Amino acid sequence: MTTIDVFNHNVPAESDFGYSQAIKSGALIHVSGQLSFGEAGEFLHAGDFAAQLKQTYANMDKILEHYGATRNQIISQILYLVNPRQNAAAVAEGNLTYFEPLRV
Amino acid sequence: MTTIDVFNHNVPAESDFGYSQAIKSGALIHVSGQLSFGEAGEFLHAGDFAAQLKQTYANMDKILEHYGATRNQIISQILYLVNPRQNAAAVAEGNLTYFEPLRV
Amino acid sequence: MTTIDVFNHNVPAESDFGYSQAIKSGALIHVSGQLSFGEAGEFLHAGDFAAQLKQTYANMDKILEHYGATRNQIISQILYLVNPRQNAAAVAEGNLTYFEPLRV
Repeated sequence: MTTIDVFNHNVPAESDFGYSQAIKSGALIHVSGQLSFGEAGEFLHAGDFAAQLKQTYANMDKILEHYGATRNQIISQILYLVNPRQNAAAVAEGNLTYFEPLRV
Repeated sequence: MTTIDVFNHNVPAESDFGYSQAIKSGALIHVSGQLSFGEAGEFLHAGDFAAQLKQTYANMDKILEHYGATRNQIISQILYLVNPRQNAAAVAEGNLTYFEPLRV
Repeated sequence: MTTIDVFNHNVPAESDFGYSQAIKSGALIHVSGQLSFGEAGEFLHAGDFAAQLKQTYANMDKILEHYGATRNQIISQILYLVNPRQNAAAVAEGNLTYFEPLRV
């Protein structure tokens, strides 16, 4: 049987909504939507999209650390954002920084 | 070669849009978006979000049954909804009921 | 260790945003959002949704070709579109054409 390895940030949203931040099943780790949350689950950087993205990726790093994984092992990501035209440059900058060097 | 095991509710949307409700490929079952549909594919519970969510999970259960799987084996779910602020409490209640006991 | 096999269309968006069109990891190929783009990454068929969908699937075919895969091996797809009521018939027509014969 496949071993299930669950990870949480221990923030209220997890018990409020009944979900975990990540589950490893077989060779794949499925990660829930990461947000611009601080350690107590408080929303950070209102109005500053670039800072929100940076915080979101910092939370992603905690998940990678737990599983001993690296950014180079991320094979798929869906990024939901508001105002895509306005925030496109910040997305580009944030992704290029986070995933450097590119695997293209 | 991997065996493909497909499941359908036999509702018109499947043949209209050319998709199946679920496909098992290897160890993973990929499930299409479940909806608040009745057995004939008719939309149920207009205006009652909590009832729609319950119906949606009932349809999910039919898929799990077909594959002999349980709710505890669901490793990832994306829930799309309208008016998230207004419906957050119903989502929390619905998820906590469906996935009880929590795997956090 | 799992071999990573990456594919790109070599359009500006890939280096601008730091992503690849597809990554094969293990038995699964994860494909990024395909669009109504031409070979230079230019947006095609403005105002003609059916033609955009056809172009999007043509780009998908290039990815399948690279991996020696077929349409019948696609196990999951998320289709994002604007004006779903207005474009539903074109989605149905496009999917039924692309995925024929049905696996229902």
